[in-house]
Amino acid sequence: MNAEIISIGTELLLGEIVDTNSAHIARRLRDIGLNLYFTTTVGDNRQRIASAISTALDRADVIITTGGLGPTVDDMTRQAVADATGRELVFRQDLLDQIAERFNRFGSRMSENNRQQAYIPAGAIPIENPVGTAPCFIVESERGVVISLPGVPREMKHLLETAVIPYLRDRLGLTEVIKARVLRTAGIGESHIDEAIAD
Amino acid sequence: MNAEIISIGTELLLGEIVDTNSAHIARRLRDIGLNLYFTTTVGDNRQRIASAISTALDRADVIITTGGLGPTVDDMTRQAVADATGRELVFRQDLLDQIAERFNRFGSRMSENNRQQAYIPAGAIPIENPVGTAPCFIVESERGVVISLPGVPREMKHLLETAVIPYLRDRLGLTEVIKARVLRTAGIGESHIDEAIAD
Repeated sequence: MNAEIISIGTELLLGEIVDTNSAHIARRLRDIGLNLYFTTTVGDNRQRIASAISTALDRADVIITTGGLGPTVDDMTRQAVADATGRELVFRQDLLDQIAERFNRFGSRMSENNRQQAYIPAGAIPIENPVGTAPCFIVESERGVVISLPGVPREMKHLLETAVIPYLRDRLGLTEVIKARVLRTAGIGESHIDEAIAD
Repeated sequence: MNAEIISIGTELLLGEIVDTNSAHIARRLRDIGLNLYFTTTVGDNRQRIASAISTALDRADVIITTGGLGPTVDDMTRQAVADATGRELVFRQDLLDQIAERFNRFGSRMSENNRQQAYIPAGAIPIENPVGTAPCFIVESERGVVISLPGVPREMKHLLETAVIPYLRDRLGLTEVIKARVLRTAGIGESHIDEAIAD
């Protein structure tokens, strides 16, 4: 079973922030035995995000995206996942109610463009986000599973642990693990170590 | 003019280290006006590295790889670049002499497998590495330019500044820059800011 991670955000491609999400997700996928062969970073461009997801679906069974789920005009992930999986975006009143409830609880005014966050690809399984406003979702398409999480590390980590890892374990029947062991050495270079342990 | 970055190393895909090289290179490419639309991370697998380079060459003019230039059996970048650009690897005595000189200077014994580091794709322009043992190189192919740098951040940064940025400026006649401005705001969420500045 193979997975890929796609980090979405032009700020990543401008080098303004370092992508720590991918390493975190990679570690957790390893823990549950999912192979990871590629990760990709792409900017806030609908066509290029859809293309990255499509390429990943050609190679892997499970794609996890982070970022691009906010309320602003450059948050393109919802639309790009719909494009890549051949679906329409549909408005979900239950998700808008969740978002409105969250703003109420935070004591702030919901903006008109937060309504955009209540659209998810048709047939997607919504993941409620108790630590932020962006609803997340899982699309089970015939080409593979696409799971879209927020880019904010705190939100991403929470949803990964509480929703995504349990989903992957149950749904995909994952029982294996990938063990990695770090050997610490001193005094000789890697070329000599390589010679010593080659076989 | 478009660029892509490919980070190579299974340790990245196991989540053992965070890829800080891509953000650093991204920032420097932005400074000299090269567009970056995708970055990719791939493990130490010859076929998958070659495939990632080939995909990037279909989309961009300049590909910068980091990692996989060491002396061990899992250092596959030299071979993968040769595969992706349709070239043979050729032994370069001048590069082996450089490597041997470096070991002499560091007062350590050169290992037989360091010889592997003296092979680069036929016709490639070598980049001497005064801060490490791995020679780097630039392949100017008909599909685009591939520049291979070490994964060790200190070595990568040194060669990027002293060799790669000057090469790109001269060779590609880069004169534009991409300006990015960070606006700091307080008190309101991104959805309200988005409404306020939409036009």
